[in-house]
Amino acid sequence: DIIKALEAALSGHFPAPGALPLDATPEHDNHAPTPDAFMPAGGETHAGALAGHHVVITAGPTREAIDPVRYLSNHSSGKMGFALASAARDMGARVTLIAGPVTLATPEGITRINVICAVEMLEAVNAALPDCDIFIGCAAVADYRLADIAEHKLKKVPGSAALTLNLIENPDIIASVTDRECPPFTVGFAAETRELARHAHDKLVRKRLDLIVANDVAAPGLGFGADDNAAVLYHLEPDQPEVPVTSHTLSPRAKQDLASAILVYMLP
Amino acid sequence: DIIKALEAALSGHFPAPGALPLDATPEHDNHAPTPDAFMPAGGETHAGALAGHHVVITAGPTREAIDPVRYLSNHSSGKMGFALASAARDMGARVTLIAGPVTLATPEGITRINVICAVEMLEAVNAALPDCDIFIGCAAVADYRLADIAEHKLKKVPGSAALTLNLIENPDIIASVTDRECPPFTVGFAAETRELARHAHDKLVRKRLDLIVANDVAAPGLGFGADDNAAVLYHLEPDQPEVPVTSHTLSPRAKQDLASAILVYMLP
Repeated sequence: DIIKALEAALSGHFPAPGALPLDATPEHDNHAPTPDAFMPAGGETHAGALAGHHVVITAGPTREAIDPVRYLSNHSSGKMGFALASAARDMGARVTLIAGPVTLATPEGITRINVICAVEMLEAVNAALPDCDIFIGCAAVADYRLADIAEHKLKKVPGSAALTLNLIENPDIIASVTDRECPPFTVGFAAETRELARHAHDKLVRKRLDLIVANDVAAPGLGFGADDNAAVLYHLEPDQPEVPVTSHTLSPRAKQDLASAILVYMLP
Repeated sequence: DIIKALEAALSGHFPAPGALPLDATPEHDNHAPTPDAFMPAGGETHAGALAGHHVVITAGPTREAIDPVRYLSNHSSGKMGFALASAARDMGARVTLIAGPVTLATPEGITRINVICAVEMLEAVNAALPDCDIFIGCAAVADYRLADIAEHKLKKVPGSAALTLNLIENPDIIASVTDRECPPFTVGFAAETRELARHAHDKLVRKRLDLIVANDVAAPGLGFGADDNAAVLYHLEPDQPEVPVTSHTLSPRAKQDLASAILVYMLP
């Protein structure tokens, strides 16, 4: 099941959660909070549950240049990824946050790497992966980029009422993570405006994710830019091939609380 | 010359600057600052110089939807337009600021109208124009928008390595202002990465602007997103047809100081 998958991923690199002493080496400084710092609704604290582990999170949109002044992007605010970074830190993890262009402040005690486009994000992910136990691909990575980026600002051709932009496929960052020989426990996100379950299930299987967090971004007051969000978590049950997909619904709540609930769901 | 053009534009609607009593009607509440509020480098105050006048300013980028989550945009931060709004307010003007999607706070005493795309910005400009004396088109309006906006998030077609976006021309907002029968004094901006003078001169003539403010956005530390900017102002001398274009260079300085200097240059 999902717990075994997480345990297997974690055991490849670090002692099981809880087995790492709190006086970790500086390299794995885990910023362990006081017990009060993480208290989910159930009242159980999970401080230290991810101590000694390296969680890599991508967040925000990517921005794909058209010319020096114009670009393609999307409405991802980065809030959910930043909330996950804070929540993982509060559970004792060492956190690397790879952020696209967003205006959010860096949570304390987190290593932040800023990138602009998908190709840069892939490079940052590759650099962070070697000792990563848990990879959370929360960024809304552009599927396509311009085939050619103009060196100078494109001028409108007088009398030309139309323009065609030719795009090519961007690298699939999350699939490149699960394609590795010893992939980390990998969590993806699906932001959809319809057929949430079908798209999430498809992405879960196609990209060989351990868990996918599906959001309906068309829901009023939730999703992109909002402070609240709801989610449905989907994962396979490897030991039970007769069960197609297990789902777990998290009702609307503040993104910070949702982030904590997602991480708690993953814990052994 | 440019002063006569401004005087002519202003006289069409309001008494000449300075002639309007400070106890203006609420409709033309001019938010006149104390004399200290506007003090350019030369030490001369211009508080009240635009009292009784309605200045309409567009600022920021426009964002053209591709689907519910993706869009085309540009790097305009809105800082220059917001600085112009504050400067015009400090000189006593009633200011309407029509802003694309930016994260800037609204300057006190200014009417702000938020828009997303070029078509919305044109509608807001049309609504604000009837009693406008000075129009400053500082927004970086997208030249093109999608021919068709997808109602639902576009899905990547597996195996399809390329995508074509078909764009159509957006309305030319600033040209629609100068095309009016009694246009306001109209100021445009040219943000260029090369051949600044040629592009600015061309835009000045083609769009029949009274003044154009040209920025080299490729200059390090200036332009898009920066707090400082430099500019070259270009205008025609209607009484001197033998002079092709008059230019006036404003050296790099804080955008707020540059905004004040641009308005002061326009004053009779």
